[in-house]
Amino acid sequence: MTTTNENRRWILKHRPVDAVKPSDFEKEISTIPTDLKDGDVLVKSLYWSFDASQRIWLTEDGGYMEPIAIGDAMRTVGIGKVVKSNHPDYEEGQIVEGFMAWEDFVIMRADGQMPLNKLPEGPIPLSWFLGVLGISGLTGYFGLTAGLNIQKGENLFVSAASGSLGSLVAGMAKQLGAGKVVGIAGGPEKCKWLTEVAGYDAAIDYKNDDIDAKLAEHFPDGVDNYYDNAGGEILDAALMHMRPQGKVLICGAMASGYTGTKLVGPTNYMRICTHNLTVKGIHLFYHAHEIPDAIQQIAQWVEKGALHVEETIIEGFDKAPDILPSVFGGKAPGRLLLKVE
Amino acid sequence: MTTTNENRRWILKHRPVDAVKPSDFEKEISTIPTDLKDGDVLVKSLYWSFDASQRIWLTEDGGYMEPIAIGDAMRTVGIGKVVKSNHPDYEEGQIVEGFMAWEDFVIMRADGQMPLNKLPEGPIPLSWFLGVLGISGLTGYFGLTAGLNIQKGENLFVSAASGSLGSLVAGMAKQLGAGKVVGIAGGPEKCKWLTEVAGYDAAIDYKNDDIDAKLAEHFPDGVDNYYDNAGGEILDAALMHMRPQGKVLICGAMASGYTGTKLVGPTNYMRICTHNLTVKGIHLFYHAHEIPDAIQQIAQWVEKGALHVEETIIEGFDKAPDILPSVFGGKAPGRLLLKVE
Repeated sequence: MTTTNENRRWILKHRPVDAVKPSDFEKEISTIPTDLKDGDVLVKSLYWSFDASQRIWLTEDGGYMEPIAIGDAMRTVGIGKVVKSNHPDYEEGQIVEGFMAWEDFVIMRADGQMPLNKLPEGPIPLSWFLGVLGISGLTGYFGLTAGLNIQKGENLFVSAASGSLGSLVAGMAKQLGAGKVVGIAGGPEKCKWLTEVAGYDAAIDYKNDDIDAKLAEHFPDGVDNYYDNAGGEILDAALMHMRPQGKVLICGAMASGYTGTKLVGPTNYMRICTHNLTVKGIHLFYHAHEIPDAIQQIAQWVEKGALHVEETIIEGFDKAPDILPSVFGGKAPGRLLLKVE
Repeated sequence: MTTTNENRRWILKHRPVDAVKPSDFEKEISTIPTDLKDGDVLVKSLYWSFDASQRIWLTEDGGYMEPIAIGDAMRTVGIGKVVKSNHPDYEEGQIVEGFMAWEDFVIMRADGQMPLNKLPEGPIPLSWFLGVLGISGLTGYFGLTAGLNIQKGENLFVSAASGSLGSLVAGMAKQLGAGKVVGIAGGPEKCKWLTEVAGYDAAIDYKNDDIDAKLAEHFPDGVDNYYDNAGGEILDAALMHMRPQGKVLICGAMASGYTGTKLVGPTNYMRICTHNLTVKGIHLFYHAHEIPDAIQQIAQWVEKGALHVEETIIEGFDKAPDILPSVFGGKAPGRLLLKVE
């Protein structure tokens, strides 16, 4: 918490080569921006989300967005409170969510690639708008519906199943009428959590199990739907177990670490041809107008207890660079957030 | 032509490791099969087709079919005349098409993975049922319709465009209302043939052009539909030029040579996610019941001159092992067939 016109910022010091490290960032004390352009909304940071996609933005090409420049504050999805607004639709005191940065005070825009959403202050914890009612929940929802178009009784296999998104997918799939839902995660503890807490019917431990044998055991007639957050060996294994005319959703590539060095493509991709598979992508940019209805639906599921919401909220501005790397391993199941203090 | 009860056969001598070679096969003189089981149809070979998929059947795992065993006659799709039938639906003298083998006389089955089609004897050249009215034409047709679901005015990019299938795709796409259709092939001669004969609006020469630059030039707003027969670098380049929500059809992987050593997957496959692409496969096994209608449609297009049919028919039983390798390079544009004599 700053009490002067100080504005703390975590700027990118040098571009990470492999895994992102805390030392890739440097803390800088600036001043609160005062020169607002038309449409600028000055916001005080409240919560920051930690996502694998942030590693993509740190690559030289940035992936699907502008790369973060050396010397710029680290980009994040977050929630903040409007301090000053040069946009007619936003006013002081409103809580908003969208692209922001690791700064105490940050200028947000409503005309970017992601909308600047106004959030209701009420019984729903604000942090949920970065998780179950935000990117994770919405990507899971549109992945299962628009992407996989999952049908009643169909089975589903999910990778990175204990992640912020995967931890919600089993519950959503069941609400959509799915049959057996199996998740894959690393280690017996996470696997236990998948079946006991997150609503999975079964779990595969990629660190200890024979993935191929387990897929054959759980899906003797083949996988109807595969929700891929992993890529790499797990995607390759899944492709060999898809039933003819099965469906695959490409949502993430956690196994790659998103380091920007060339990804390894799925060796078994010709299964798409020989088994007449349908492979789709999911990206919220293409579902902006459907988001309000989706949030309603997900909120109903949460209300009736059909979705388990798991969050880890860490407090303290200074901790941001330390916790970003844990997105790629070591963090607890569910959503990882920072409360800016 | 045998005049006794001799039956010439080309059997697999050893499994090819890289490219298939004539010396992988051995000629053997056997006798005409006499012991027909229930449902067996004994056929005299007339035409054999030469397809990249034959290289897949020669791998140890066979791909989507049983691998061809050492000592077995080489499998092919072909046309023959029924000599003796143990199946109520087929009688002596009928012309049929389906899976057969490099033998003068071969037992065909109607209950295999591919139907045993009865062909009309009439004005249509029999060889066309192995090309424009057979696998090539049908795979092209279902690839464009069921696979890509190409819409009026949408553009299309096609790899291996001078191949048996690619040579038909531009004409079909135009009949389906496509806008600009661009093909990629190897060498200026084939590229010239694409635009002057095969109905392509433009051609890219992968041996001499900068593929990336040419794609940007021909598709400044991105590729709506990509019909992939190549895989490898061309698939990777195309993925980078797909428009958001564009469509990709995985039909072949000519660049791999189908040698059964692990394919290289598309490095840029995460474009499926970030650009919300739809990727589908095409395999005729899944369209069996729609084939008669599709043949009607394609035949109409041929009749009105909308499709150019290009065939090279080589004569002579003995030439089969020599011409199979040319499927992967060096053959003339269009369909390659052998007339069994």
